[in-house]
Amino acid sequence: MNFIAALKHRWQQADSLVCVGLDPEPSKFPARFAGDEDAVFHFCRDIVDATAEQVCCFKPQIAHFAALGAESALTRLVAHIHAHHPGIPVILDSKRGDIGSTARHYADEAFVRHDADAVTVNPYLGRDSVQPFLDHADKGVVVLCRTSNPGAGDLQDLMVEGRPLYQHVAETVARDWNGNGNCALVVGATWPGQLREVRAIVGDAIPFLVPGVGAQGGDAAAVVTNARNAEGSGLIVSSSRAVLYASSSDDYAEAAAKAARDLRETLNAHRR
Amino acid sequence: MNFIAALKHRWQQADSLVCVGLDPEPSKFPARFAGDEDAVFHFCRDIVDATAEQVCCFKPQIAHFAALGAESALTRLVAHIHAHHPGIPVILDSKRGDIGSTARHYADEAFVRHDADAVTVNPYLGRDSVQPFLDHADKGVVVLCRTSNPGAGDLQDLMVEGRPLYQHVAETVARDWNGNGNCALVVGATWPGQLREVRAIVGDAIPFLVPGVGAQGGDAAAVVTNARNAEGSGLIVSSSRAVLYASSSDDYAEAAAKAARDLRETLNAHRR
Repeated sequence: MNFIAALKHRWQQADSLVCVGLDPEPSKFPARFAGDEDAVFHFCRDIVDATAEQVCCFKPQIAHFAALGAESALTRLVAHIHAHHPGIPVILDSKRGDIGSTARHYADEAFVRHDADAVTVNPYLGRDSVQPFLDHADKGVVVLCRTSNPGAGDLQDLMVEGRPLYQHVAETVARDWNGNGNCALVVGATWPGQLREVRAIVGDAIPFLVPGVGAQGGDAAAVVTNARNAEGSGLIVSSSRAVLYASSSDDYAEAAAKAARDLRETLNAHRR
Repeated sequence: MNFIAALKHRWQQADSLVCVGLDPEPSKFPARFAGDEDAVFHFCRDIVDATAEQVCCFKPQIAHFAALGAESALTRLVAHIHAHHPGIPVILDSKRGDIGSTARHYADEAFVRHDADAVTVNPYLGRDSVQPFLDHADKGVVVLCRTSNPGAGDLQDLMVEGRPLYQHVAETVARDWNGNGNCALVVGATWPGQLREVRAIVGDAIPFLVPGVGAQGGDAAAVVTNARNAEGSGLIVSSSRAVLYASSSDDYAEAAAKAARDLRETLNAHRR
């Protein structure tokens, strides 16, 4: 599966810009999972099956699995998505970054061990730290640009040659790192004006992974209005908690499906 | 174990600034490990036992374990160090960084699951992404400042208000993030002049984790001369491949001990 091609297919065929983030927190699971030793897999699988037709991709966040020692659940979850929902790409949200010789091992973690179609990476260590990911031309490399958290500006907004660092990162990715055409950027929903600025810098070809809608307070309509490309797509709008934990009762799967569908419709109302 | 206190104790009592990096690569293991299903643990354990008296700390690099699905070996390795070499702190080199609610899970990964005494973190997401680590006041938080790789300068050397970004990070950590006195900085050995500049910015209290000696070409003597504090310490000089793979024959443990001892003596010759 070529990540960018699969993503474009989902944007059109599934008519969705929604990404469901898979951030398992057992304390938030419905009561029926109490005592289930494989609850992380079972809960995430149920969410995947309930929301698959609403999404352009899924995004498991690896820290939530790692803190629980649940790497096996992660591997099986990605395999489940590939087997039961073929064509829906999986972004492993791990925000890795290390020197080149070590980054190769992180690329193996994402693309070989867990069979992800894309991975999030941190640009602070520079080009050679990202190269082992870029070399997987069929995989997506989603580079942190402007994140959605309160402290994002501490470094990302520092002025470099007259513009904020995150804009420098955006241009560097578009100009230097995207030789295989497999880059995307993380640009948070909490700052719609920044989405517009980054789109102007990088053009229409580079997808944005946009976290921060839902629990973090980002405005879904403003995201699409400010950051859609000329085709009314180019966006992977991620929601995690607002979908996963839409209900803590036995209707958790239906509630997740409704939350994903509602987000999809809100986004689609502003695509064109 | 309080990380900073334990580190100071090792600097003085073990008279060592050496950190042995544990980066297992089975293809480089001596032939005797062929067919050993627990080779990652056994090889690293042998290196630890052979080099313990030469070091101020150990630094397992998590990507090397994760790519192999060997988290269990990592957990058992840290437990082995704590049990058999008490007082030697363990830095988990994972360079994590994510929004605060996710960073909590990475802190659990490092400090609860793997029982590490310190962890490396990436500053690109800002203060709230580091806070869950900082809140563990007895643990060390080793923030990337100026790394040792060829592309380090792509972002880290960009000029912000008249000085490179990495110096801004150094000052931010010293001024704002070190309230619990548990911060350290990664400053690579490949650029000794930068070590001197960062020491001048942050003063004597903040330890530097210095990778890049050995396989990456950094000059051990220049590291100490440029970056030691007034007590002739303040440094965690890390060597991985040059120690681990000093010999691929049955004398691998003795060769590793010799490489660590040689590095220790080279560093100590310039401490005072």
